This record gives sequence, structure tokens and C-alpha cells, in this order.
Amino acid sequence: MPKQISIGIVGVGKIARDQHLPAIAANDGFKLVACASRNAQVDGVRNYRTLQEMLAAEPELEAVSLCATPQVRFEQARAALVAGKHVMLEKPPGASVVEVSLLAELAREHGCSLFASWHSRYAPAVEAARTWLAGRDIQSVKVLWKEDVRKWHPNQDWIWQPGGLGVFDPGINALSIITRILPHAFFLKSAELWVPSNRQTPIAANLDFTDERDTPIRAEFDWRHGSEELWQIEATTGDGVLRLAQGGKQMHIDGVAVEIGPEREYPGLYERFGELITAGHGDVDIRPLEHVADALLLGHRHAVEPFVE
Amino acid sequence: MPKQISIGIVGVGKIARDQHLPAIAANDGFKLVACASRNAQVDGVRNYRTLQEMLAAEPELEAVSLCATPQVRFEQARAALVAGKHVMLEKPPGASVVEVSLLAELAREHGCSLFASWHSRYAPAVEAARTWLAGRDIQSVKVLWKEDVRKWHPNQDWIWQPGGLGVFDPGINALSIITRILPHAFFLKSAELWVPSNRQTPIAANLDFTDERDTPIRAEFDWRHGSEELWQIEATTGDGVLRLAQGGKQMHIDGVAVEIGPEREYPGLYERFGELITAGHGDVDIRPLEHVADALLLGHRHAVEPFVE
Repeated sequence: MPKQISIGIVGVGKIARDQHLPAIAANDGFKLVACASRNAQVDGVRNYRTLQEMLAAEPELEAVSLCATPQVRFEQARAALVAGKHVMLEKPPGASVVEVSLLAELAREHGCSLFASWHSRYAPAVEAARTWLAGRDIQSVKVLWKEDVRKWHPNQDWIWQPGGLGVFDPGINALSIITRILPHAFFLKSAELWVPSNRQTPIAANLDFTDERDTPIRAEFDWRHGSEELWQIEATTGDGVLRLAQGGKQMHIDGVAVEIGPEREYPGLYERFGELITAGHGDVDIRPLEHVADALLLGHRHAVEPFVE
Repeated sequence: MPKQISIGIVGVGKIARDQHLPAIAANDGFKLVACASRNAQVDGVRNYRTLQEMLAAEPELEAVSLCATPQVRFEQARAALVAGKHVMLEKPPGASVVEVSLLAELAREHGCSLFASWHSRYAPAVEAARTWLAGRDIQSVKVLWKEDVRKWHPNQDWIWQPGGLGVFDPGINALSIITRILPHAFFLKSAELWVPSNRQTPIAANLDFTDERDTPIRAEFDWRHGSEELWQIEATTGDGVLRLAQGGKQMHIDGVAVEIGPEREYPGLYERFGELITAGHGDVDIRPLEHVADALLLGHRHAVEPFVE
């Protein structure tokens, strides 16, 4: 077995416990040696309160995975890269477009692998959809990404603060998929944003994109949805309708289910991170975040009723 | 004399008449042959109502300069590039970050020069400031870009609509200068935006940037200023304070005026455009627009009193 890459996790919250810890445990290429979190500890590894303490105490550490909120991601990533660590960023990779592009430069300067991860791109149907759509005549695309914010983000105040993205926090998952599977780059033409009058970020958004062929690409994000979430992408082509359902876990062509593999988004992410480190490469695609920034630049805002937790 | 480049102007409004027409007339390398504008005509050239009519009727045309509002810039630029014309874009180069990067790709595919112009970078003190700051220890930067919107943008409804940028329309001029003169790339940490309750875009904004050295870079944009505009950039260094005043027309070091040349922003732009065409190059720097998108992504919004023209 090749040498394992020693890794530390920063920010032990829901996503770290639900996804990152099990994915690392199941990956022979990585060995979790430390965690840094203000208020949480992980059994069986060395725990620190901050990334800085972890970096000071763990000179042998080779990689870190940053799972804290996007508002603090840049400072943590910078500190880790300057210390010579490979870095994996949870999505979104930062709070601004420019800071992520500067991190990519910094990683190159320090000879580290930087992986701006988009977990939804590792949903099992995504590569199958990309392959099926390649070369096909796409007539229109419709994205519906609707869920109940109270179910998926209970008491997560940061999502409502500037930089927290609001409904774009799940919506950027859809954008990370369509930027991967559609064969032509697209851009925003107009957007409508609905923002609770007591909050900073949108609770719903409709986005109209197009591409060089004038394909209509419509995305509807809504956090005011019922208990059954709707995470669906439908592409109408000259050869039939491709539908990704359940966030990319299912794929249908003209209503007929296509057999794909089991769900393994985060295991896929850590496989990819390991490959990048071994190859000495980085993978930083800022495009999904650019689309969100464009939506806030170009979107027409409507105030809606206050959101009270 | 080398062969002149035949050029057409699209969008004959205030900026075209005040700046573009005189700059082209004074440049031996260009010959203005046509204009396209819905409601305006220019004497001595062939006039069309739309770019499409102009492109159809003027197959020999080599270049176009797009001076209409940013919301329509992409479609015009695409049509011109696809027709094989070299394109100069007034600032801002588009209504979204992604559309401008797609235009740059399209220009490369069609072998045309695309110039995303930032006229303030051609203010006479800008290159002198860049040279003076290179290698110096910069301790802080303060930008004050304040003017009266009623004086500078009377009845320009588009600036208040989504994509119109509001106070970032002049503010992006300051951003285009500091992205040129500061030796290290910087990114936004936080922003405050003040938006009239009856409008979509900010009337004032405070931006706090920093760079890899943690230099504090503060920008204050305000459209509620008195009749004397303040367009000033001050960089405090270990060797004294550099001040650009009047939007880059004047430069002082520790209060002592430095001799620089006369104002010639738009003549400088057309010289550059001619050089790019001759060399077969493009020049598309999206960074100033990325900073504005980041400000709208990350900014904390405050509703302020309605703005009534």
C-alpha cells in the first residue's frame, strides 16, 4: 500500500460529521490525524481549537480539508497553503470570486494542491449525463432546486448573512452540475431575487441563462418548498429529454430510468483530492461562484415577508 | 502612412460625442466610416439605426467601438465578433463577469482583437503612480470617489436598473486604476451598500479590501456628494504618501506636485486599440468588474431614502 496522506479537518460541524469523516475513514489513501474546531472534538485524533494551533503542533501534517463557513475560508486556506499543506475547500470555495482566484495563485506559488470541491459534481448520474449530452442538440434546460430551508439549514445564521449566499447555497450545487454537464458555456441574462425584509440573502431566485447558441437555460431556486425536496435538472434535446433527479442520484431518458452506480459524492471527492496530490495538480473551477456573483450583480431584488426561524 | 483601420461607433450618446468621436478624429490610424444609433446621427459618415444594419451594409468595416449601455453590450459584441470585426468595449465591458470571459473566448475563436477598455487607466498620472509604487512598502490605501449623481448622470435610468451598477459605474473607474497601480492583487473582505428604497443599485458603497500582505485598502464611493467631485486615491508608503487627484489627472508625493503630461484618456484608448489590432492581440481584464460583483455578493445592504430625479 502506498504511503497514506496525513490529513486534518478544520470546522467540525454537520457536513464534516455527516460526510467528510466517513469518506476519509473509508479511503485507504488518507489518514485523519487531527481536527481543529472551536466547539467540537473528534474521537481518536488530536484536537485543536484553531487551524493555527493545529499547524503549529502538527508539522508532519500534509493536507487539510476546510469545512467551516465560506466567510472564514480564505484566511484558513491561506494559512494552510503558506504552511505548505495541500488544501481541499468545501463548497462554495470562498466568499468572493477574486479571493478564490488569488488562492489558486498562492497554491501554485507554494507548490501545493488546491482542490475547490463541488460535491454535487460527484453525484452518480453526473458523468453519465455529461457523456449523453455531449454532441447532442440541446433545445432547452430547466433546473428546479427547491427545498425547505427549515429542514436543511436549521439555525444556520451564517447563510442569511452577507457572503452566506442564501438560497444559492444549495443552488450553487445545481450550478456546479450544469456547468459540468452542458457542452457549451452559458451566462446570465437576467435574474429575479426574493429577499426576506429582515435578511441579507435571497430565499428564492429565478435565473435565465443562455449560451452561444441562444439555448434557454432556466433555473428556479426556492427555499420555501414543502417537505419533499425537488432537486432536478431537465435537458430537452433532439434525441429526447434527459432528467437528473434527486440532485444527480437518478437519471432518466424520456422517462426511462438509466442504471447508474450508488451515491458516493464525498468518497469521490477524496479520491479526486488524493489523485491531485499525487499528480501535483490543482483543481479550482470558480465558474459556479461567478454565476452566483453575476446573479447578485444583475438580479432584480424584491423584498418579501420576514423570515423568522 | 500605413493603411487606416475603418471603424464604426455603436451607441451615439454623451460619452460617444464627448470622447470617442474626438479621439477617433485625432487618430491617424482610424477612419470613422459609420455609426449605429437608435435616435442619433453623426455628420459626415453613414448612419444606421442598429448594429445589425451597419454590419449588413458595411462588409469592409474592420472595427467597431461599442458605447451603448452595458446591458446590451454582449449581444452587440457577439454579433460584431462573429462578423469578424475587432471590438472595443466601453467600461464596464458587460453586465456580468461570465459573459465578458465568454466574449474573450469568442474573440480568440474568430481571430479578432477584443479590447475591454478602462479609460481611467489612461489618465496621465496612472503609469507614473504604478512605477513609483512598484517595489515600495505600501502601508495603506484610501480611495475616495464621490460626486453628485444629478450632475454626472442626469436622467440616466439605466444606471439604477439591475446591471447598471449604480455608484459602481464611476466607482469601477477607481477600481480600474488601483488594480493597475498596486503591485499586489487584492480582494474584498467586507462591504456596506446603501440602496435607495425605490431603486435597484447602490447610491453609495464602502469597500474594505486587503491583499496577501494584509494591507488595508479602503474605498468609499458616494453619489450624494456636493458639486465639487472628489476622485482621489492615496497610498501611504514607507517612502511617503502618493496621492492621485482629479481621477488621475494630478499626482502628488507628500503634497508636492509631480509633473505629468496632459489629460488624454480616450486618445490613449484608441492608440492602444490600434496597437492591439496591429499586433493581433486582445486585452480583456475582468478584474475591476469581478470586484464589483464581489461587492454585490458580499455587501451588507442598507435601504436609504428614495432617489427622485
